[in-house]
Amino acid sequence: NINGERLWQSLMDMAQIGATKKGGCNRQALTDLDKQGRDLFITWCEDAGMTIRIDEMGNIFARRAGTQPQATPVITGSHLDTQPTGGKFDGVYGVLAGLEVVRTLNDNKITTQHPLEIVVWTNEEGARFSPAMIGSGIWSGEFDLDYGWNRKDKDGCTIKQALTAINMLGETPCLHFPIKAAYELHIEQGPILEQQQLPIGVVEGVQGIRWYDLIIKGSPVHAGPTPMKGRQDPIKGLADITSALYKMVDKYTEWSRVTFGNVLVTPASRNTVPEQVTLWVDLRHPENENLTLMDAEFRAIAKSVCEQHNLEFEIKDEWHSPAVQFNQDCVDSIEASVQQLGYPYKKMFSGAGHDSVYVSKVAPTAMIFIPCEGGISHNEAENVKQEDITSGCNVLLGAMTKSAGV
Amino acid sequence: NINGERLWQSLMDMAQIGATKKGGCNRQALTDLDKQGRDLFITWCEDAGMTIRIDEMGNIFARRAGTQPQATPVITGSHLDTQPTGGKFDGVYGVLAGLEVVRTLNDNKITTQHPLEIVVWTNEEGARFSPAMIGSGIWSGEFDLDYGWNRKDKDGCTIKQALTAINMLGETPCLHFPIKAAYELHIEQGPILEQQQLPIGVVEGVQGIRWYDLIIKGSPVHAGPTPMKGRQDPIKGLADITSALYKMVDKYTEWSRVTFGNVLVTPASRNTVPEQVTLWVDLRHPENENLTLMDAEFRAIAKSVCEQHNLEFEIKDEWHSPAVQFNQDCVDSIEASVQQLGYPYKKMFSGAGHDSVYVSKVAPTAMIFIPCEGGISHNEAENVKQEDITSGCNVLLGAMTKSAGV
Ligand SMILES: NC(=O)NCCC(=O)O
Ligand SMILES: NC(=O)NCCC(=O)O
Repeated sequence: NINGERLWQSLMDMAQIGATKKGGCNRQALTDLDKQGRDLFITWCEDAGMTIRIDEMGNIFARRAGTQPQATPVITGSHLDTQPTGGKFDGVYGVLAGLEVVRTLNDNKITTQHPLEIVVWTNEEGARFSPAMIGSGIWSGEFDLDYGWNRKDKDGCTIKQALTAINMLGETPCLHFPIKAAYELHIEQGPILEQQQLPIGVVEGVQGIRWYDLIIKGSPVHAGPTPMKGRQDPIKGLADITSALYKMVDKYTEWSRVTFGNVLVTPASRNTVPEQVTLWVDLRHPENENLTLMDAEFRAIAKSVCEQHNLEFEIKDEWHSPAVQFNQDCVDSIEASVQQLGYPYKKMFSGAGHDSVYVSKVAPTAMIFIPCEGGISHNEAENVKQEDITSGCNVLLGAMTKSAGV
Repeated sequence: NINGERLWQSLMDMAQIGATKKGGCNRQALTDLDKQGRDLFITWCEDAGMTIRIDEMGNIFARRAGTQPQATPVITGSHLDTQPTGGKFDGVYGVLAGLEVVRTLNDNKITTQHPLEIVVWTNEEGARFSPAMIGSGIWSGEFDLDYGWNRKDKDGCTIKQALTAINMLGETPCLHFPIKAAYELHIEQGPILEQQQLPIGVVEGVQGIRWYDLIIKGSPVHAGPTPMKGRQDPIKGLADITSALYKMVDKYTEWSRVTFGNVLVTPASRNTVPEQVTLWVDLRHPENENLTLMDAEFRAIAKSVCEQHNLEFEIKDEWHSPAVQFNQDCVDSIEASVQQLGYPYKKMFSGAGHDSVYVSKVAPTAMIFIPCEGGISHNEAENVKQEDITSGCNVLLGAMTKSAGV
């Protein structure tokens, strides 16, 4: 069994970096704070006898040799970057649980047949750079390297510039390689496990996600003398489109989601009807057919509302991550590990995207969830029980050693 | 009669400074471009034999001596700052028409009994610094100097810093002084004169304006795993409050207005329900009683919508400019001047706030309007007929010489 105290302490140490007043973390991708977090992780891995590679997207691979040097590795990992209003566990738990597995094997002087690798994927959150999961996305071949290097944050800084600035632009090609099995341990970020009082979720897949920029174009006029009638006011479009989308998703079962993460207005003058409004739209559904229908309804709603208010619009497709089904063998290994430990569990889908979505394109992959308080994540109040942290890591240890052979 | 060609040419010369690709102007208050515009105006005034004073708020007073040196001046003027999507005439016309009146008197070697002063008021638009009309507001005693100096733009630069940076922090106290009469010539910025095919409006007053920051507070959660039910999503508040306000103002006759100039969202992450949304609200009505009722309805709507969606909110009163009635003698002088020239005209109210609102608190004041194309203003497409530019300036010449005595 793993050392729950040690794992908890590592989580708390990492949480110091970018700690916020409200008890969360703001350690966004490829910032100086992310660099500090990465450096701490690398030091810990080196202390645990691992060797480090960093690839062209800044993904970090920490390797523990196996008894069969040529064998394909069993990998685990997640991300160290956080949301601007992030918590202490989202992503970080999956990385440091991997480290705890290695530390536990070290303590017990166990060497697996297959090597083990812990991966830190770059910019999983999609908060600083869009889209999310870009590090694993490029590694898996979903996007090409130029696309990744040229993604910009809101100040125009590219990923390549940011990687260079924190000295994390590695020489290892950002490209997938043969892998025995890939596991990712993560907090659920939703309410299901807590509501059902289960410490473990065996994750069989991830729902589909679509990101858009909806640009609504009106005509700027003076707030005072211009009659309400005849205005081409993009805020009218914004109000009606968001209202209609909240109603629309309700038709697609309780599993559908719509989120508007940002609204950008120009020229942003108090006494001028805006010229343009840009709305960030996030649509999700576990079934691709339903997500396709929601996509079509979204476009139709935007069209009809904008026609009604005499507005122009444009929809920019920012990201599409279709629903994913994980590898049955990996799901089975996790389930066997949970059963062996005797924890209650359920099989479930993930509402959040994870690096495993892209890893699963090129390697047998599955995920493990633990509950989080109130299902709350992407919030500084994000919290988990220490015993669940321990249980999840024990499940990971079991699954990894099963796949890696002892 | 004034020289319409010369006035038009001066307007076109000034419009070069901050000219935009779409044919408008972006010369926001106290920027380097505003400085260039001010310097050009000062040069023109000095060439016309006038003397310049600049006060502690950067208001510029260009004085033409009268035959009675101790007599109170007749003033006219407006502003040189523009909206970010501004036109060539809003404000600038009132300033350069004053200059054209002086040039015309110079040409005809006429000296008035009372001195004449042309004023350039600082930050009339309220686009860079809120509130609007701050230069005349402080000069008239509506706000104190510290309030004015400490107003910040969106980057945190104060008016005092901006004044210092462009060397426009003058030594003349920013304080009103005895005035014989004050006139302001402006484009209507609305559709009434054009619709009624009238070249001149005699403006008897200005409608009431209220500006607010509405802050809607939710709770950030993950866009994917978090069920729609139970979210505290401030965008739901935004949609319902803006929709309800558009409906609300329609009850208060065709003269009521609501405008939402900006929406600010935090933390602005694509996969996080926003924590907070700030909405800029501009409410207007020509009658103070109705504006008071609209104010109360706005507060009630915000409260009931936020309660319904389990959101917190806060309303910050940013500015209140009650409806104003201009001075009857000044209105009469303008009317007499129009009648003498034989132009068709109507008496009317202004939908936009103007520096005359604050000037009227401490001096006999009235305004003259000319039509603008489609009633469009605060838009780069803002346009006027050259003959209307000429007519308006002739009316100003008549009113000023009547008040100043020849
Ligand atoms: N786990 C997580 O926050 N992933 C980001 C990708 C998403 O938006 O679901
Ligand atoms: N004329 C003008 O644009 N004034 C600004 C004040 C207002 O918002 O009405």
